[in-house]
Amino acid sequence: MTTLKNTELSPARWNEEKEICELLDQRLLPYKFEYVEIKNYEEMSDAIRDMVLRGAPLIGIAAAYGMALAAKAGENLEKADEVLRGTRPTAVNLMWALDEVQATIANKNSSPQELYPEILNKAKWIHADDIERCKKMGEVGADYIEQRFKQQLAESGKLKIMTHCNAGALATGGYGTALGVIRSLHARGLVENVFTNETRPRQQGARLSAWELAHDQIPVTVVSDNMSAHLMSNNQVDLVVTGADRIASNGDAANKIGTYQLAICAKYHNVPFYMAAPVSSFDQSLENGRNIPIEERAAEEVSHINGKTCTVTEEIENFKDFRAAKFRNPAFDVTPKELIEQIFTEKGNYFN
Amino acid sequence: MTTLKNTELSPARWNEEKEICELLDQRLLPYKFEYVEIKNYEEMSDAIRDMVLRGAPLIGIAAAYGMALAAKAGENLEKADEVLRGTRPTAVNLMWALDEVQATIANKNSSPQELYPEILNKAKWIHADDIERCKKMGEVGADYIEQRFKQQLAESGKLKIMTHCNAGALATGGYGTALGVIRSLHARGLVENVFTNETRPRQQGARLSAWELAHDQIPVTVVSDNMSAHLMSNNQVDLVVTGADRIASNGDAANKIGTYQLAICAKYHNVPFYMAAPVSSFDQSLENGRNIPIEERAAEEVSHINGKTCTVTEEIENFKDFRAAKFRNPAFDVTPKELIEQIFTEKGNYFN
Repeated sequence: MTTLKNTELSPARWNEEKEICELLDQRLLPYKFEYVEIKNYEEMSDAIRDMVLRGAPLIGIAAAYGMALAAKAGENLEKADEVLRGTRPTAVNLMWALDEVQATIANKNSSPQELYPEILNKAKWIHADDIERCKKMGEVGADYIEQRFKQQLAESGKLKIMTHCNAGALATGGYGTALGVIRSLHARGLVENVFTNETRPRQQGARLSAWELAHDQIPVTVVSDNMSAHLMSNNQVDLVVTGADRIASNGDAANKIGTYQLAICAKYHNVPFYMAAPVSSFDQSLENGRNIPIEERAAEEVSHINGKTCTVTEEIENFKDFRAAKFRNPAFDVTPKELIEQIFTEKGNYFN
Repeated sequence: MTTLKNTELSPARWNEEKEICELLDQRLLPYKFEYVEIKNYEEMSDAIRDMVLRGAPLIGIAAAYGMALAAKAGENLEKADEVLRGTRPTAVNLMWALDEVQATIANKNSSPQELYPEILNKAKWIHADDIERCKKMGEVGADYIEQRFKQQLAESGKLKIMTHCNAGALATGGYGTALGVIRSLHARGLVENVFTNETRPRQQGARLSAWELAHDQIPVTVVSDNMSAHLMSNNQVDLVVTGADRIASNGDAANKIGTYQLAICAKYHNVPFYMAAPVSSFDQSLENGRNIPIEERAAEEVSHINGKTCTVTEEIENFKDFRAAKFRNPAFDVTPKELIEQIFTEKGNYFN
């Protein structure tokens, strides 16, 4: 176990000495702060699929490190690319990062081991570059929001914000997308409170965003996923900002399940809804969001919490026949562009 | 521990021999099927407050039995009434049932013990009457829905329904309000699937509705509270039906937290939204829903699941300062009449 240093949260790091990748096991947060050693690309694939890490930009970074590990071991890089590409279907940053690695080594007649330094450098660049992009995005969003809420800020001084899932340092190289915007607003003294939805089934909001915001001493309040509209109707939410896992060219955006209904509720209450995502989250090959693949994850994520099921009744004699409940677990949904006032990127605002 | 008999679910029953009330401890479901003995009105007050039982109509029934227990013991009935009335603020059936008991004993110059048989009879009447009302309500709702979806039923034969929390046999004397409508539709062979939202923080949907529907062999699928809009946008939901805890005279209705945002999402997708509630859930003293008191429950319900917290990080050295997350736990919200197509009661449809 590693003791946290009160520095920026780093969900992934390259160990120069061991030449391996270390990942903060986000499944254990906030109970344990523990890095796991990832020694080859298969372990990286498993880590992405099993959600040791998550978050669209971070998945891309991890996949790039996975390619470096494959090269170091002299593995077939085409196969490694294919396996890593198949780990999670929705976030497009995974494909973007692997494409970046491929571009680095294209048309080079070298062995994997010879390509290893270049691939590792590329992975490190993707990682460092992501943090820079997040910081730019944070400023873009904070500038826009400060201008948009000029009048209200003149009256009340601060903003009440809602976010969903974790689009924070833990979802990126560091700093975060949506939480990056919130960090930038907080640095300007403009944050009164951040509501973070629990985000069932995996509770990234309660486990990760609450922890991350508290870590940075940003005021945070955890609520269940079904409280959003009630809080909006009681003027507790000035704006909503979330991340995005894949954005079509028209602005339709896939993000963690629940984002879509949050956007509908925001529209109903005239609460502005924003997203923050790097350019690598845009999929220009898609005209709109209808064809974004939506990952369906295991039923157990919904049926179980903290290792305990909600519905199975096998402990009760005579109840064995009643274990008939089914489960659905779509991990993402698509928010149509009509519900999004603005998408913040490191290059500026997406909608003119 | 009592073994379940495959009969109608009975969340409360009067034990004639012991002259006490027995309550199915719903906090233990679906893991344990266990009745607790309630021997006096203080125990009944605690049981209501601590949610051994829940559900607006059942709270009223339990309070009436509580008055019978107070009378049997020769307690001050005014005080018992006051204590019971203060247990839960939102559901109006509690007040209605206690008013019914008061009407029975008003202006009678008798001792509590002398009044006991009358009060007990009244409580039993309220209980039995509630089941009858639920069955009538179920038919009223099924008639309306069968007519409303005539064309679709001619094409597809069955309906895809969504419900929230538990407005079932476990929330009433038996049979249920919203689940009563679903039971009636199922008896007519018209139910393809019922989505039940988990209903955080107490998971009444996953723990109680899923169990109750599976018990009656009605097809049920559990989903998280943040999946509703996504399922609606994918044509998985033809209609929504929920219970209600207190309805103002204009039709604005308080119900379990999350109902309001479900109704907003239903409106956005042109999915009809229904409620089912007995006449005793109507509060004609309220013109609209703005003044319905909303119970705020303990933070621990949100911060903990299955005994484990999501956010406290005391296990990690250096993390003690990060236990700064706050919690909100409003237990109900108000759905405005504009979002409700029809409210089914035992006397017919509420909106003309």
